[in-house]
Amino acid sequence: MFMNCRTLSLSDLSSSLSDDASVRVAYKGAPGSFSEAAALKAYPLCEAVPCDEFEAAFRAVELWLVNKAVLPIESSVGGSVHRNYDLLLRHRLHIVGEVQMAVHHCLLGLPGVQIEEIKRVLSHPQAITQCEIELNKLSVVKESVEDTAAAAQFVASNDLRDTGAIASARAATLYGLNILAENIEDESDNITRFLILAREPVIPGTDRPFKTSIVFTLEEGPGVLFKALAVFALRDISLTKIESRPQRKRPLRVVGNSGNGSAKYFDYLFYIDFEASMAEQRAQNALGHLQEFAPFLRVLGCYPMDTYL
Amino acid sequence: MFMNCRTLSLSDLSSSLSDDASVRVAYKGAPGSFSEAAALKAYPLCEAVPCDEFEAAFRAVELWLVNKAVLPIESSVGGSVHRNYDLLLRHRLHIVGEVQMAVHHCLLGLPGVQIEEIKRVLSHPQAITQCEIELNKLSVVKESVEDTAAAAQFVASNDLRDTGAIASARAATLYGLNILAENIEDESDNITRFLILAREPVIPGTDRPFKTSIVFTLEEGPGVLFKALAVFALRDISLTKIESRPQRKRPLRVVGNSGNGSAKYFDYLFYIDFEASMAEQRAQNALGHLQEFAPFLRVLGCYPMDTYL
Repeated sequence: MFMNCRTLSLSDLSSSLSDDASVRVAYKGAPGSFSEAAALKAYPLCEAVPCDEFEAAFRAVELWLVNKAVLPIESSVGGSVHRNYDLLLRHRLHIVGEVQMAVHHCLLGLPGVQIEEIKRVLSHPQAITQCEIELNKLSVVKESVEDTAAAAQFVASNDLRDTGAIASARAATLYGLNILAENIEDESDNITRFLILAREPVIPGTDRPFKTSIVFTLEEGPGVLFKALAVFALRDISLTKIESRPQRKRPLRVVGNSGNGSAKYFDYLFYIDFEASMAEQRAQNALGHLQEFAPFLRVLGCYPMDTYL
Repeated sequence: MFMNCRTLSLSDLSSSLSDDASVRVAYKGAPGSFSEAAALKAYPLCEAVPCDEFEAAFRAVELWLVNKAVLPIESSVGGSVHRNYDLLLRHRLHIVGEVQMAVHHCLLGLPGVQIEEIKRVLSHPQAITQCEIELNKLSVVKESVEDTAAAAQFVASNDLRDTGAIASARAATLYGLNILAENIEDESDNITRFLILAREPVIPGTDRPFKTSIVFTLEEGPGVLFKALAVFALRDISLTKIESRPQRKRPLRVVGNSGNGSAKYFDYLFYIDFEASMAEQRAQNALGHLQEFAPFLRVLGCYPMDTYL
C-alpha cells in the first residue's frame, strides 16, 4: 500500500524490520538508562521494555515476549564484559545488530538542590567507577544500585535532597531532576558497544557493510592462532576485534614438567569480529577452513555494522 | 657469607631479589585486600604498603618510596582492565612478575550478628558486581567503597550491627569480624591476574619459564595482524594472551564513503603476552621483525611466569 511506503532513513540502516514501531526491545535497566538509549538508537520508534537482569532480557526474547534484546558487550575504558559473552554462549540468540555510543554521565539532583548539599551518590557500580575522580572531589558516600536510571528514579520518588544520582541527561528529564554537573566521567572518550539480539538471524546481504562475530577454541600449541588468523588474512578479510580468554569451568591444565614442578596453563576461548558478510563466498570459505582445525566454532551473528557514532 | 646462604624456596621462584624481607610493595587498598594478598603471594616476607589509588602506587615506586607495586590487570569474569593498561602506558615502570589468584568473597559482619540482621552491604564496586546473585537474595542496600578491606574496616570501627562487608577471610581476621557466608561470588572460578611492577626491569634468564608482555599498533589493512602473529609463529613462540583495543584519544577515524555516509572505524592497540624470555635469540628476532612494520612497539616487561595458583 502506498501509505506504507517510506523513504530510506537511519532506522532502515540499523534495522532489518520494515516497521520499527512494532518492535519491542528488552534492555536491562529502567527508562533513561544507557541500554535504553542504545535500543532507541537502533530502533528509534521501538517500544523499549525494561528488565531487571540481562538474563531476563534474554528470556523475554526466547519466550516471544519481545522481538529483540540489547546487551552492552565492551567499553573503551572497562574492556570486554566476559560475563555477557557467557550469556551469549549459554543462550541461543543471534546478534542482529550493533550500536556504538559515547556514554556521558551527569550528576543529577532534586530541583533547587546545590551540588554542595549532596552527601551521597547513587548509581550503577560501573558508572561509579567511571566517575571516580569527580566523586572523590565531592567526598560523598557512594551507593550501588541496579542501574543508572533507577538511581535517578529513587532520588526523585523519595524526594532525597542530600542524594545525587549518576545517570544520563535523559534520565534527568524523565524523572524531573536537575543536572548538577555534566560529563563527569574520568575518560572523555567513553565508548560503549552494545549488541542487538534476536531469535532469528539476519539474512545477511552484501548491499552494505556487514560484520560477523564468532567464538572458537583451538588445540594448544605454538602457531595455532596464527593458523586461525591465516584463514581470514589469506582471503583479505579484516578483523575489528580479537580477544583470547582463559576458558571458564576448566581454567587450569597441568602440562609437562619444567623442573620447577608442574606448570599450569589456561585453555582459551577466542572472540573474533571480522568485516565480511556471510553472504560472501570468502567468508563461507574462511569459516569452513577454520572449522577444519577448531574443535569448537560458533557464529554469534552476522549483522550490519554501526557506522554512525 | 655462610649465614646468607639459603636453599631455593617458593619465594625465590617469584622474586628476583635475594632478600624478601627488605622489599616494600605498594598496593591499592587496605590490609586484607586481594591486592595485598597478591603482593604477599609474590613476596611472602615483604612489607605491603597500602595506597589510596593505583596512580599513588605507581608514584610510590617512581619516587623510590617502595620497591614494587602490584596491579590487577584482568579477571576471568570481568575481562581485561583497560584503565590499568593505560596506567602502564602512561608510566615507565616495568612488569617484573605476575600473580594469578582465585578470588573468593566472604560476607562479613560483627561478632554475634546473624545474616538476617544485615540491611546494607559495603564493598568495592567490582566485588558487589561479582556477588550480584547472592546479594539480590538478601535484598540489602549495596554501598560502594574504595576497597573490600576498607569495607570490613569501616563496619568494625563503626560497630555497625546492620551492615555487612564483602571481603576476604583474611580481612575478617584482621578486623575482628565473623564470616557470615563464604564463597558468595556468582562464578566459582573467579581468577584474577595481577602484575608486579618495578623501576628496573628483571634481567631475564632462560633457567625457568619467562613471559614477555608487549603493546603495539599496526597500520590499518587486511592481514596486518596476521603478519604480526607470523613473527611469533614462525619462531614457534606461543601466545598466552592477545587482545585488540580501540585506541583511546582517537577512537574514531573517518574512512572512505560507502554510499551510506562516512563510515567510522576504530584504530587499535594490541596487547600480546608470549611465552619466551627476551634472553632467547628467537624472542629478540621476533620483536626486531615486528618493529619493521609496527609504528609503535613497547615491551612492558619480561618476567617469570606464575605457575602456582
